Amino acid sequence: MKCTSCGAIAVVALPSHHSGFCEVCFFNFFTGQVEKGIRRQKLFTREDTILVALSGGKDSLALAYELTRLGYAVTGLHIDLGIPASSPAARAAVDGFCRRHGLALIVKEMEAEGLAIPRVRAALLNRPICSLCGKIKRHFFNRVALEQGFTVLATGHNLDDEVARLFSNTLRWDIAYLSDQGPLLEAEEGHGGFARKVKPLWRLSEFETANYAFLRGIDYHYAPCPYSRGASFTFHKKLWADLEEKMPGRKLDFYQGFLERGRPVFAGVEAREGAFLRPCASCGLPTSSEELCGVCRIRAIVGREKKGSEPVLP
Amino acid sequence: MKCTSCGAIAVVALPSHHSGFCEVCFFNFFTGQVEKGIRRQKLFTREDTILVALSGGKDSLALAYELTRLGYAVTGLHIDLGIPASSPAARAAVDGFCRRHGLALIVKEMEAEGLAIPRVRAALLNRPICSLCGKIKRHFFNRVALEQGFTVLATGHNLDDEVARLFSNTLRWDIAYLSDQGPLLEAEEGHGGFARKVKPLWRLSEFETANYAFLRGIDYHYAPCPYSRGASFTFHKKLWADLEEKMPGRKLDFYQGFLERGRPVFAGVEAREGAFLRPCASCGLPTSSEELCGVCRIRAIVGREKKGSEPVLP
Repeated sequence: MKCTSCGAIAVVALPSHHSGFCEVCFFNFFTGQVEKGIRRQKLFTREDTILVALSGGKDSLALAYELTRLGYAVTGLHIDLGIPASSPAARAAVDGFCRRHGLALIVKEMEAEGLAIPRVRAALLNRPICSLCGKIKRHFFNRVALEQGFTVLATGHNLDDEVARLFSNTLRWDIAYLSDQGPLLEAEEGHGGFARKVKPLWRLSEFETANYAFLRGIDYHYAPCPYSRGASFTFHKKLWADLEEKMPGRKLDFYQGFLERGRPVFAGVEAREGAFLRPCASCGLPTSSEELCGVCRIRAIVGREKKGSEPVLP
Repeated sequence: MKCTSCGAIAVVALPSHHSGFCEVCFFNFFTGQVEKGIRRQKLFTREDTILVALSGGKDSLALAYELTRLGYAVTGLHIDLGIPASSPAARAAVDGFCRRHGLALIVKEMEAEGLAIPRVRAALLNRPICSLCGKIKRHFFNRVALEQGFTVLATGHNLDDEVARLFSNTLRWDIAYLSDQGPLLEAEEGHGGFARKVKPLWRLSEFETANYAFLRGIDYHYAPCPYSRGASFTFHKKLWADLEEKMPGRKLDFYQGFLERGRPVFAGVEAREGAFLRPCASCGLPTSSEELCGVCRIRAIVGREKKGSEPVLP
């Protein structure tokens, strides 16, 4: 197979784009998709200060690499979850990456916050740990971005992540989630504040970010979390892989069609019915509950773990 | 496996409903689903005169059988498409069924209308024949219902048909189609008129209607149309079969969730942006085009077939 752009021998075949590329042209393709993703959804400009959430996996490191290369002002943020073996390896990958590429890095240790994931898991056995862990990470992404004055928080979610999530929300016709899924969530000032959140890799598949990370020689952490098991998300990703193979380009069509035609319809409804938010009595970040936000309640439960039985979480 | 209702030996297993039934209890289940489908979507009452479109397949005959059994005022309508071998066999199945069950039957012959499908296909080689054929059938369903004063037109679409169509519309985020897909399309008086259209089998899967037809001893026509080939619809049905196997009940959840939460949102947008309709200059039925409706244009093209080249269809 020959490179669609220059005729050299192709190293990456991309049926979804009816193309194949040599290494150099694949990098150009990748950059083009990132730039188109930023421009079309007006994610940010070169004036912004961007905090990139770095898990240590291929997507987040590829994102930090590409944004730095393109001249954006990037700082890394790593949340050390405190999971034995897994977290030190992930952190080492992030440390090494930032050192090699001269990237400033902020690390937040969940152990020091009283929120190490093994302790959360033990204290809240009846709650799915993946959703608690996700809640905790998003909380600190938002908190660090706001406290340290970054104008944008970026995550490495790729097209497959976004399509799997959109598909799951659509299967349930969950209007609240459908109304604000997308590569951009605007900042909000009230109730303690939400940072502006962006997903610059929304046009790129997992296969494409993996190839990018590999060809750029990025040393990433790829072991799956020891606590995650085969969720329905995995099944949806497989289903979409089949759909994409049968009808190349379907994933991006589905997601772009949603952004152009679906989301505006849902957002119009939801804006009128949005939840009432107020600042958390402990950390000051927005919550829809009466007093403490979800993360501060988790922290309280973990702290009380040895003293008594588990309070009811709303 | 034992019958979930009465403990006898089950003959039909329905994982989607976490049930299995003996023949008698399966009939009760089927009736319950039809009645719930009619009641929940307010499809029609015993005062209505119902024209049931009968293709000769399992779904339409099962529908006519069940509605008749429940005491509704039912008349059959068969469109004879004029396809060699296939159409005579389908018509014989419908004829036999109506004779056996004392059902009044109206037959419309497309040959007599200048719209025999083989001639349409030959005259419009560059257009997909399945969509032309569907257009012609829907035209005559509507026309016969209006001309002969039926208050409702019913078709045998099952849950799998509906889910495959909804899925296809959702993948494209086709707001116009999403705004009026469902088991009920209200009658409209203006522009030549639309009959009230209903799909009473919307809660029942293809597997369930096939079992019903088999256990009721209904002699149906099951050969596939010689003109249809593996469309993407077939692929979507396979995909949904996998999803349903993995997560029983998912199909009905997806479709019901759409009716309850999705469709109202789309309908609100589309009502403001609906197409402008007027009566066709030839047949008088509604069309969005300047002069002739789609079917009258097809008829004109088929009539001119031997005289010259094909006019452009908008």
